[in-house]
Amino acid sequence: MAGGFDVVGKSTPKLDGPDKVTGRTCYLHDLELPRLAHGKILRTRLPHARIVSIDTSRARVLPGVLAVLTGADVEPRPFGFAKDQVALKRGKVRCIRDEVAAVAAATATIAEEALALIQVEYEELPAVFDPLAALEPGAPLVHDERSTNLHDLRYRFNHGDVEGALAAAAAVVEDTYRLNFVTPACLGTMVAVADWDPAGNLTMWSTTQVPFLYQRDLSEALGIGGDRVRVMQPPVGGNFGRGLDIYPIDVIAALLARVARRPVKIEFDRLEEFIACPTREPCTIRLRTAADRDGRLLARDAHVTIDGGAYTSWGSTTPYVMLSTVAGLYRVPNVRFDTTIVYTNNPYSGSMRGYGNPESTFAVESQMDDLADQLGIDRLELRRRNLSKPGDVNPQQFVLTSFAMGECLDAVADEIRRDPPPPRPGQKRGVGYAGMFHVGGGARIYRSDGCGAIVKLDDFGKVTLITGASEIGQGSETVLAMIVAEALGVPLERVDVVNSDTSVRPWDVGTHASRTTFVAGNAARLAAEKVRAQLLAIAEGQLEEPAAALDVKGGWVVVKRDPRRRLPYEAVARAGHFRDGGRVLVAEAFYDPPTAMLDKDLQGNVSAAYTSAFQAALVDVDPETGRVTVRKVVSAHDVGRALNPAAAEGQVHGGIHMGLGYALSERLVVEQGQVVSQTFMDYALFKADDMPDIVVRLIESIDAEGPFGAKGLGESGVIPVAAAVRNAIKDAIGVRFHELPLTPERVHAALGAA
Amino acid sequence: MAGGFDVVGKSTPKLDGPDKVTGRTCYLHDLELPRLAHGKILRTRLPHARIVSIDTSRARVLPGVLAVLTGADVEPRPFGFAKDQVALKRGKVRCIRDEVAAVAAATATIAEEALALIQVEYEELPAVFDPLAALEPGAPLVHDERSTNLHDLRYRFNHGDVEGALAAAAAVVEDTYRLNFVTPACLGTMVAVADWDPAGNLTMWSTTQVPFLYQRDLSEALGIGGDRVRVMQPPVGGNFGRGLDIYPIDVIAALLARVARRPVKIEFDRLEEFIACPTREPCTIRLRTAADRDGRLLARDAHVTIDGGAYTSWGSTTPYVMLSTVAGLYRVPNVRFDTTIVYTNNPYSGSMRGYGNPESTFAVESQMDDLADQLGIDRLELRRRNLSKPGDVNPQQFVLTSFAMGECLDAVADEIRRDPPPPRPGQKRGVGYAGMFHVGGGARIYRSDGCGAIVKLDDFGKVTLITGASEIGQGSETVLAMIVAEALGVPLERVDVVNSDTSVRPWDVGTHASRTTFVAGNAARLAAEKVRAQLLAIAEGQLEEPAAALDVKGGWVVVKRDPRRRLPYEAVARAGHFRDGGRVLVAEAFYDPPTAMLDKDLQGNVSAAYTSAFQAALVDVDPETGRVTVRKVVSAHDVGRALNPAAAEGQVHGGIHMGLGYALSERLVVEQGQVVSQTFMDYALFKADDMPDIVVRLIESIDAEGPFGAKGLGESGVIPVAAAVRNAIKDAIGVRFHELPLTPERVHAALGAA
Repeated sequence: MAGGFDVVGKSTPKLDGPDKVTGRTCYLHDLELPRLAHGKILRTRLPHARIVSIDTSRARVLPGVLAVLTGADVEPRPFGFAKDQVALKRGKVRCIRDEVAAVAAATATIAEEALALIQVEYEELPAVFDPLAALEPGAPLVHDERSTNLHDLRYRFNHGDVEGALAAAAAVVEDTYRLNFVTPACLGTMVAVADWDPAGNLTMWSTTQVPFLYQRDLSEALGIGGDRVRVMQPPVGGNFGRGLDIYPIDVIAALLARVARRPVKIEFDRLEEFIACPTREPCTIRLRTAADRDGRLLARDAHVTIDGGAYTSWGSTTPYVMLSTVAGLYRVPNVRFDTTIVYTNNPYSGSMRGYGNPESTFAVESQMDDLADQLGIDRLELRRRNLSKPGDVNPQQFVLTSFAMGECLDAVADEIRRDPPPPRPGQKRGVGYAGMFHVGGGARIYRSDGCGAIVKLDDFGKVTLITGASEIGQGSETVLAMIVAEALGVPLERVDVVNSDTSVRPWDVGTHASRTTFVAGNAARLAAEKVRAQLLAIAEGQLEEPAAALDVKGGWVVVKRDPRRRLPYEAVARAGHFRDGGRVLVAEAFYDPPTAMLDKDLQGNVSAAYTSAFQAALVDVDPETGRVTVRKVVSAHDVGRALNPAAAEGQVHGGIHMGLGYALSERLVVEQGQVVSQTFMDYALFKADDMPDIVVRLIESIDAEGPFGAKGLGESGVIPVAAAVRNAIKDAIGVRFHELPLTPERVHAALGAA
Repeated sequence: MAGGFDVVGKSTPKLDGPDKVTGRTCYLHDLELPRLAHGKILRTRLPHARIVSIDTSRARVLPGVLAVLTGADVEPRPFGFAKDQVALKRGKVRCIRDEVAAVAAATATIAEEALALIQVEYEELPAVFDPLAALEPGAPLVHDERSTNLHDLRYRFNHGDVEGALAAAAAVVEDTYRLNFVTPACLGTMVAVADWDPAGNLTMWSTTQVPFLYQRDLSEALGIGGDRVRVMQPPVGGNFGRGLDIYPIDVIAALLARVARRPVKIEFDRLEEFIACPTREPCTIRLRTAADRDGRLLARDAHVTIDGGAYTSWGSTTPYVMLSTVAGLYRVPNVRFDTTIVYTNNPYSGSMRGYGNPESTFAVESQMDDLADQLGIDRLELRRRNLSKPGDVNPQQFVLTSFAMGECLDAVADEIRRDPPPPRPGQKRGVGYAGMFHVGGGARIYRSDGCGAIVKLDDFGKVTLITGASEIGQGSETVLAMIVAEALGVPLERVDVVNSDTSVRPWDVGTHASRTTFVAGNAARLAAEKVRAQLLAIAEGQLEEPAAALDVKGGWVVVKRDPRRRLPYEAVARAGHFRDGGRVLVAEAFYDPPTAMLDKDLQGNVSAAYTSAFQAALVDVDPETGRVTVRKVVSAHDVGRALNPAAAEGQVHGGIHMGLGYALSERLVVEQGQVVSQTFMDYALFKADDMPDIVVRLIESIDAEGPFGAKGLGESGVIPVAAAVRNAIKDAIGVRFHELPLTPERVHAALGAA
């Protein structure tokens, strides 16, 4: 029992784990429906071209073909963050992902054959693939109706006197950091299954992780009421932010199903996933950091240029989070931030775990190391001197309540020295550090950051939590079940979680911003507490004690001062049910954290809690080949309270895995607008053998607002990795890199140049 | 708008209708699961025999076979009403339905092949197929451990002074009525699909109509906690009471799946459905009715003998309801009732629409006609003189509140005379009448007769009702959606009903006793009213009026005294959600009617409302062939309020269809314990062409407790039919029949004898 708890605080295997490891899980890919038809999408082969003609006549007559659609066949309804794309393109194509036609057929093979029969004539147009080139006069326009490729989106922030601080500084470091396309590389590719009923109601089975926003966005893209869309979320093989928006796959599946009058499934193969899955955005961060002679930060000044690609999805909005690191990672009194977001003929980006923060943390923490070097101050000491502390209100008006970054730093500094792995002959060893700052109590991006929950306790003691929250592999089912079990006082195995159908679940904004444990957890806790109160009210009569004298613990309703007087909680539930004026036990709750949206000056306390982490990476660099081997990563996280320590560690492991790929090996190669990476042979995800020893330290700051003190953790593992590795390589070989990934080729070239 | 209502009172197509008529509905039969295995059951070929040996060795080695089970392989866990059977029989078989082995295999064909490889050696035992013979000394014992075939179950009722009344009567009619096996003949046969997860939790997809009782009973039959069983109810092709109990198919599917470690589906083919589906019980009703010279009833004295078959399911308990008609159909001051329930080697019976009432009403209403004839009083007049009235408390202490039997009688008497169908040359025409009495406000058979409901209203104005109630084709989804729409004030098409998963739904006792509209309807109404109050509370701020001054109507929240001031209800919902301290709209309710279980004297007000109906049948009888053609049926029903008149009429049509088969054509032929009827060629269901003109009159007594005044109707259509037809035949040809069905052969023979 951890801290008086029966359930939370104990490492608990994921409830969906046994099904997954035994192959029982019915993933979205496995979904079969009667009369299911299969959809395929024809994409452009040119990144920028006028569509002269599309001849679908041969495809339409192929036996087994049920529907063929082009932009000419459907009403153009723009969707996406900036409403700048339609599902089936008309007039011209703007990037290699662009959809020009789609087919539904009795089988996927027939649909593929039909695609091959569609003749599209293009007139190639000059294209632009670099954001700075795209802003030059006379550059080809991605959207003809706009007079410029410069996006309307701009994130500007100004706090304090940056110029004055720069002028007064003892040291200023300035560099430009370049980040490339990476892709989430989910093992389960994107899938959309659409089914219309005769009354015009649409059921969508989707890889979305924001089902209620998806319900809204998809209905708008189809021109129907949101009340006509039901969204189902079967288990998915990863998402990592990919499911934060609707994409043409979703709209096209629905359009095809409407014409075919049959359910239609579109499932990306791996090649299509590389081409058409939203990526992490490529960007350039120009950053200056200024400090006094003691290393106290005086100012940061950042300018981010984002290659938005041809259309606007969440990738173009990541400066929202980049700013929070520029302004919030360590105490910085003066901050300036600006952006240039540009349309190009490249693929467009979406949301990906960390959502701008791995990018900005790479810049900020690389620069912290370089600043320490310039000032001659120990790297950890420099960071210690600038730590944010509980009670801080940062330049964006973020209010830090629980905040244990110092403890994270100390834990990592201590742990990385223990048991170093044996050195490798001829290799150079280095240790690098990086911290991170992130929301940990939701993030009010939308007007509601809330989540609803319904808890039901049946005659058999079975508890069901119906939650708005979306399980996308992060373990939310398990932690929410634990929260309900703890709040109710019942064994975990008696709690079921229902979380995959918008018709049944109450609203939730979705899985993003590491918010599920905090927000959905609080909703679940509140609903469970109501059911607990109902139980105690019934037990008053049975145990002849007032509710305040009773407790529910381990499945028993007990008299607190005489625990031998007790009843199984399910017997209490039945007694409440099977009597005159009886009732069954159901309660609902809604939790929306006490936060504010950012105002026009990008200020406002967006999260009910903030979190931090600190990492150290120990690397060996082979000077002969430039190959970097990460031998050990230590990662300490302020989790508020570790409700499920094993799952929390797992989240960190997964984040480190993704971060190491970002740091060292992963790059979605896009050349002249074409996606060149097409298989896992090309796209070098870290494999199990590539992974270093990992030590995770979970630091408990016990947040006053979080459920049982917990804060969010979903993204913090990935965020500091690239910076820590970069700083470790610098420590090993003295080379300061400013661009990722740090491939052997790049390291070797730098060693040669040095 | 009927009576100020926007939704209720209007004939509304069933919400599940379009899917059903377009073939989109995914019935339980259509269910596919990954790695689904198929189960088959081997039954005895002898109705009574000792099992000498079962050799499954050849079946076990057949490629594709995943599990083979006999009684020796599983723990014997008795189940059923009297806990007198196990799923796989040991030692001996007692009826032709008995399960001796079961196989799960990769395909149904392999499973069939494996069954054929199982060698069972039997030692045939003397058998008994007649309940009276079964009670004779020395009769073979169905259950060896019992010293008699007489069942412990006995229903005895005594009210007033029956002997005295008989002695004082001006007329006494006495006869014995014989009712045979009929089967519900559902177009969708019985199916059970079982799937265990690695943690030992079982999900069952079932034809049950009492999912929470099934959860309990199945868990006991498997020796696991009820909290480990999740029951799913996909759409079924009829049920009619068949799904009121668990049967070996359910337990065997679960046992096979546990061994096969794969989901297992058992689906009866039509032949198996005839053999193994629970039937309506065969019974003999000895009835005496006494009246004074004015035709006022003085007493009824009934003795029911039930052939319980080899095991006890609900069929043996139908005297519970037979009594209510003997004591409650018309005013009867003195009542005596007794039963003899007997084990035989026949198949056992279950619950079937009307649940004893068609049987007892056949006896009671046949006898009312014969009594009228004996007294020389008009048949309708005799009935009018004995009508129960609102305010009556009957011998069982049933309290009649709303009760419009007189209006039903008048409506039928009026309607049957209109537009008589043209006579057929040479045929004899007759008109017959019968009334019926039934519960209309639930029936407290169990300690709880309640139902729970959760209503959720989302940002898009979509309303979901999560109800405990089970849709088995009766139209409950539609009427419950109408109730929610009416109570909330929103358009019907915006209401969805979720009703098929015990993990999600709150408790309900199930679909039986015509209770769903009344009980589940009240629960739905209460939950919807709570959401309506939540809406109005939000709108107070927006419309600047107190909630009491506001209304929700047709999808608008309006200011009552100035309806131009209004807001779409979904906009109100969103305003309540998207604000500081916002919430989403969810409410739950539980409704358990204010009733009592019958006490040991079989007295108690079991239902919150009682209902009645009256029918007339117009028949032409061909004296040459004995063939009876029903030309017209008029059916008037006290429905409290007709919430969905078309669906109410449809229920009555369906009941009349079933009743006509019972009266004239249907008989499950069981000879020497063998089920001889094996196809729809043998088992003469009424076909569309056989159906008469039907006129339904819905009489609205507006029940004070019912939802919007409604009462139950699900069974009343079937109950009087056989009596009305029997009385019409008597009217046509002067022959008084006392046994069903009235086949041409039987009528012709009687005419010859007359």
